[in-house]
Amino acid sequence: MIKVIAFDADDTLWVNEPFFREAEEKFTEMLEDFMPQHSSLKELYHTEIENINIYGYGIKGFMLSMIETAIRVSEKNIPLSMIERIMDIGKEMMSKPVEMLPEVEQVLKELSSDYRLVMATKGDLVDQERKLKKSGLEAYFHHIEIMSEKKETDFLKLIKHLDVYPSEFLMVGNSLKSDILPVLKLGGHAIHIPFHVTWKHEMIHHEIEHEHFYQAEQISDIIPLIKEM
Amino acid sequence: MIKVIAFDADDTLWVNEPFFREAEEKFTEMLEDFMPQHSSLKELYHTEIENINIYGYGIKGFMLSMIETAIRVSEKNIPLSMIERIMDIGKEMMSKPVEMLPEVEQVLKELSSDYRLVMATKGDLVDQERKLKKSGLEAYFHHIEIMSEKKETDFLKLIKHLDVYPSEFLMVGNSLKSDILPVLKLGGHAIHIPFHVTWKHEMIHHEIEHEHFYQAEQISDIIPLIKEM
Repeated sequence: MIKVIAFDADDTLWVNEPFFREAEEKFTEMLEDFMPQHSSLKELYHTEIENINIYGYGIKGFMLSMIETAIRVSEKNIPLSMIERIMDIGKEMMSKPVEMLPEVEQVLKELSSDYRLVMATKGDLVDQERKLKKSGLEAYFHHIEIMSEKKETDFLKLIKHLDVYPSEFLMVGNSLKSDILPVLKLGGHAIHIPFHVTWKHEMIHHEIEHEHFYQAEQISDIIPLIKEM
Repeated sequence: MIKVIAFDADDTLWVNEPFFREAEEKFTEMLEDFMPQHSSLKELYHTEIENINIYGYGIKGFMLSMIETAIRVSEKNIPLSMIERIMDIGKEMMSKPVEMLPEVEQVLKELSSDYRLVMATKGDLVDQERKLKKSGLEAYFHHIEIMSEKKETDFLKLIKHLDVYPSEFLMVGNSLKSDILPVLKLGGHAIHIPFHVTWKHEMIHHEIEHEHFYQAEQISDIIPLIKEM
């Protein structure tokens, strides 16, 4: 019944969010003379959310929001070298090697013979393409969709584009908010694989109960789940 | 014979490059105390090209390159308010209304009944989606492709994805380097509509002679050209 399996990429196929946590740690340390770390972290989050409509997701917007926050929090008292340091932090993030999660490749290989596999990820175009290339996973995917948002209308477009019914579509990802809920609402299937770090913006605070909803602990668990669908 | 017509967006459907020129003007004026305008413009271009592999095309990368250039050119002597001003320039660019080029909508409307129309544009995902939405042109396009690069391999992927032969594919755009040459090399057809402002990075300095290459002065000229193909 399932024809297409779409995979989120960041923190589903490879490590991503911990690099943002590391960067935030460096950033808030830098600003400690002006503000306690937990407060400048809050300020940064506030700036990011304010900017998300114009910047979208990804490292470049994150860099610009760090710069904006540092200037505001310090009341224009940081040295310019700190701005340079912020840009270095961002550039380092962009050139990190891709750290694949365990068993990802075997799972994709096994599923690719029976299903059309798709990568469906938010974020920056250049950065996601770079990671996909470095990962060596490109050949397993029939289609790559880099999305500016993962709301119901965005998934609906993708599903139409893939020429399947929502009931033939399965999404696998770590974000209940972005990968799971919108797909279930459209009549699709969804498997949640939690990751140990989740960005505050992606959190939801209620339980999901739905006949098309499945939980997995790690990616290798999805194979038996899919076979039973 | 032509089945798909792909349109570049920036400076083919709507005005783009002049906004970058305006921003550069503001930027180099700001730095006049440190360097003559033509020199800081060169420095900015140099920074942009250095960063293009990691940042890609678009306003966010442009903002980050302006900040980097301002710090370098001033030898860390600009006030932080200048960094804020650079960020405002970028944010203003992102919220500008979309200025359509003359007759674009009529031409798309007329062609859309006989051909599959595609928008194929470089740049930032969020920003291009924003402009497309504001333009009201979305309904004329069968497919939107926002590309991180417009090289031969990128067009080849797009043409395969559209399930046509290169000889059935026509690209319309203002950049000889990005819209015309790679498509001709793949065996496709291309119509060049020059725009009065071209970014240095998009310029080529030789004439094109090719049996699948056509020149138009404005977008309405392409209809008779296509009818003769």
